[in-house]
Amino acid sequence: MKKALGTHLILEFFGCDPGTLKEVPYVEKAFLKAAKESKTHVVAHNFHQFNPYGVSGVVVIEESHYTIHTWPEHAYAAIDLFYCSDEIEIEKAIQVLKEAFKPTMIKSTELLRGKPNELMAFSRRKEAASGVP
Amino acid sequence: MKKALGTHLILEFFGCDPGTLKEVPYVEKAFLKAAKESKTHVVAHNFHQFNPYGVSGVVVIEESHYTIHTWPEHAYAAIDLFYCSDEIEIEKAIQVLKEAFKPTMIKSTELLRGKPNELMAFSRRKEAASGVP
Repeated sequence: MKKALGTHLILEFFGCDPGTLKEVPYVEKAFLKAAKESKTHVVAHNFHQFNPYGVSGVVVIEESHYTIHTWPEHAYAAIDLFYCSDEIEIEKAIQVLKEAFKPTMIKSTELLRGKPNELMAFSRRKEAASGVP
Repeated sequence: MKKALGTHLILEFFGCDPGTLKEVPYVEKAFLKAAKESKTHVVAHNFHQFNPYGVSGVVVIEESHYTIHTWPEHAYAAIDLFYCSDEIEIEKAIQVLKEAFKPTMIKSTELLRGKPNELMAFSRRKEAASGVP
């Protein structure tokens, strides 16, 4: 079995070029390019413009989701890349996003979602609770 | 300033009632109820049905996003509640989701996205890199 059902990459882009974070068209184009180049299969996407600036975007992919929220006034973007297929070329997505938003610093945390040992442990707990020997 | 720009709650629901995780209508209804009861403002939502079962769902809210991915065969759901407003009553969302999916175990991790000290530190780093004294 895989190491987990899903891999969830939490990315914090600091010191971005603020101009790149302000409006939907640029952010949407970059994000959809990241989805495409990392070999995801896009199901749906929605990007929302904040006033006076800032963007929230989600891309539903067959393999889970990519999301972004931008704070141009802080030169910051919070990005999540959640995928559950070994076929995804996640480094390509990161490269596209780096080129698009030009962060001076990226903080990256990988979370494993649905780890086999936990799925098994808590499934057993349920059996115990219901009286199954 | 707030403790961070956004609060990101990573929830792992183990040992759920598998029947509740299989199809879009039930998952979507529960998730939109969670969004409503926690006082978010829904901008858009999209739920995707997998064959033979399983659901991916995203809700874009004015305050960021809620997402869910379900694996009924593992009685497991990966849920993210990302919000950037103190007005959100997040405990109400969790309560709705618990009642809907009946997990025997919840693993919860709170991430702070865009912490002031990091925003400041990496912003300064950018200035240093560009030669600003």
